[in-house]
Amino acid sequence: MESDLYNKSLELHRTLRGKLETKSKVALTSKEILSLAYSPGVAAVSTEIARDPARAREYTLKRNTVAIVSDGSAILGLGNLGPLAAIPVMEGKAAILKEFAGVDAFPICLDVHNTEGIIAAVKAIAPVFGGINLEDIAAPQCFEIEERLRAELSIPVMHDDQWGAATVTLAGLINALKLVGKGKSVKIVLSGVGAAGVATARLLLAYGLTNLVLCDSKGIIHKGRIDLTKEKQSLLAASTALVSEGELRDALVGADVFIGLSKPGVVTQEMVRTMTPQSIIFALANPTPEIMPEDALQAGAFVVATGRSDYPNQVNNSLVFPGVWKGALDGNLQQFTLPMFVAIAEVLAATVTDLTPQKIVPTMFDATIVDAIARKVQEL
Amino acid sequence: MESDLYNKSLELHRTLRGKLETKSKVALTSKEILSLAYSPGVAAVSTEIARDPARAREYTLKRNTVAIVSDGSAILGLGNLGPLAAIPVMEGKAAILKEFAGVDAFPICLDVHNTEGIIAAVKAIAPVFGGINLEDIAAPQCFEIEERLRAELSIPVMHDDQWGAATVTLAGLINALKLVGKGKSVKIVLSGVGAAGVATARLLLAYGLTNLVLCDSKGIIHKGRIDLTKEKQSLLAASTALVSEGELRDALVGADVFIGLSKPGVVTQEMVRTMTPQSIIFALANPTPEIMPEDALQAGAFVVATGRSDYPNQVNNSLVFPGVWKGALDGNLQQFTLPMFVAIAEVLAATVTDLTPQKIVPTMFDATIVDAIARKVQEL
Repeated sequence: MESDLYNKSLELHRTLRGKLETKSKVALTSKEILSLAYSPGVAAVSTEIARDPARAREYTLKRNTVAIVSDGSAILGLGNLGPLAAIPVMEGKAAILKEFAGVDAFPICLDVHNTEGIIAAVKAIAPVFGGINLEDIAAPQCFEIEERLRAELSIPVMHDDQWGAATVTLAGLINALKLVGKGKSVKIVLSGVGAAGVATARLLLAYGLTNLVLCDSKGIIHKGRIDLTKEKQSLLAASTALVSEGELRDALVGADVFIGLSKPGVVTQEMVRTMTPQSIIFALANPTPEIMPEDALQAGAFVVATGRSDYPNQVNNSLVFPGVWKGALDGNLQQFTLPMFVAIAEVLAATVTDLTPQKIVPTMFDATIVDAIARKVQEL
Repeated sequence: MESDLYNKSLELHRTLRGKLETKSKVALTSKEILSLAYSPGVAAVSTEIARDPARAREYTLKRNTVAIVSDGSAILGLGNLGPLAAIPVMEGKAAILKEFAGVDAFPICLDVHNTEGIIAAVKAIAPVFGGINLEDIAAPQCFEIEERLRAELSIPVMHDDQWGAATVTLAGLINALKLVGKGKSVKIVLSGVGAAGVATARLLLAYGLTNLVLCDSKGIIHKGRIDLTKEKQSLLAASTALVSEGELRDALVGADVFIGLSKPGVVTQEMVRTMTPQSIIFALANPTPEIMPEDALQAGAFVVATGRSDYPNQVNNSLVFPGVWKGALDGNLQQFTLPMFVAIAEVLAATVTDLTPQKIVPTMFDATIVDAIARKVQEL
């Protein structure tokens, strides 16, 4: 089945020779139009922009164009395959932005692989763009890169693997908790503290879901550990959960919610049975979840979400980034903040009006979500 | 008149909000097509490219896409207006590439302003592109930047202000010499030794037009001068002309050809009268030539070319770069060389079959030139 899908995808890419093209908005069919769109008329536009740099938004593609930036160090679930292998993914992202939100986007796949080099390259190319969407950059580098670029650029910067994933997860969780009638004191266990895991934890805490136990590949994150990164230490300090030494299996006892952004198969039916009644499982490892939905449901879970399109409740950052970028560009947003992503998650959750355990998040083809998110971003 | 053109150009740019857009080649209208164009299917494409990097040309936009790179340090004739002001010019260039040659292109306007920084930024973004078109970068920086990038990248690099201008000039000169029946021993005076001037001199020398006297703002370039750049020294060494101290006015006495890539009004009718009969004048300063065509003709010049679209014989690098990039991409060219530009100039000259003193170069709207140049580039 998968190899069939893969062959079809290779065939599609070979036929198209790339999914993205550039296009002139003006037909250059006469000397007259050329003299306006290019030399000598364009000199007036350059002069105006030099006089007032804000005019670049009025006269150029900067107004509606986002850079999709990757160094290829964490491509999908495939790891560090480098910038050439990142191109088709970033092209796909750019195609989604245009098709779903009318936003122009161009892939920038960087042949530099250290934090300072990536920051310097993104700052160098920033003038042409209205925003920077970072993508598939490995943790922990991605945290400093995003933070530094936000501080040093005057256009919005978002690492989508962090905030896209985190925002959809929070939206889904808001709806799942509504379904089971549980409040903000629920005990949540989050497994996997990479790019998406750290951002998700930050967002849950910002929303008020502070009874949060984090697990990484070494087990529960607790004060006694001496191997914790800056990010993990800071999340632990912000959590109000009672934590002690142990494995993921120990953490899950009595938990209301499991969120997996980690590895296939790390959760068993036996572990689900130790959770509270009407438990909520987000098994988001791709392509194979931490536990398969049918197994989780059989073991007593009430709501199950995955990253897959072939099961209900697909938690997919494509639900968020098109609307976010449309809103950021249309509203001339200066920078993203944590409270914005909380507000976006609430809006996204509210777009699901026919809430059931099989529909806690909308799909990309729900026509209202892009505009609902874009409007919210502009209000913020 | 000019202010009317400028107002119309501002209005066009304001209405369009940028001249260039990105577009998905595939309509993302179903889950199924999304799963092929994006996750999970695209994982197969990334994996294939990681295994064999040459496949990026087969599966991605790299195959047909050129970066139009500028730091905004020498925008048109306007000087150093910076990267934001460069955007509309580079967008126009990208629009021309698509409209005239079917080549995709994207503007990269760099907020770095030193040689090493520009080289590093271009190398960083190179993976996505099949070629690098440098544009409006000031001399003498532009020489080292182009040379280093050619040595360090495995995709073709061309500074169009150098090679576009030089190639069209040589093409026009080949035809003008044919008209007046003069051979390669003609005495040529070239005024202006910036980016375009240096490249033009190199190309003339490579073609065999070695009786070449160069002038810069300080007068004739000769051995006695202690202020010569590396480029000027090397051109002087390659010339076979007898040169001595003096001004442009002294150099023009007995000259067959004047090529100006310098400043408005530096050539007078009196100076033209000291040239040989049937003299050839390329007054290419923009927008105001070294001498106006009507004045040059009245003083006895036989062929006059300018950079302007409102006079006959417009020497315009837009005649060259669309075909060059189409050929370079279609032929998977590794790098440009000086003999290639000579061959391209010969092909461009040959496209003019109805040669007259008023038509020594074709216009951009001559339907055959892009394919003629592209075919030649692929043969080389």
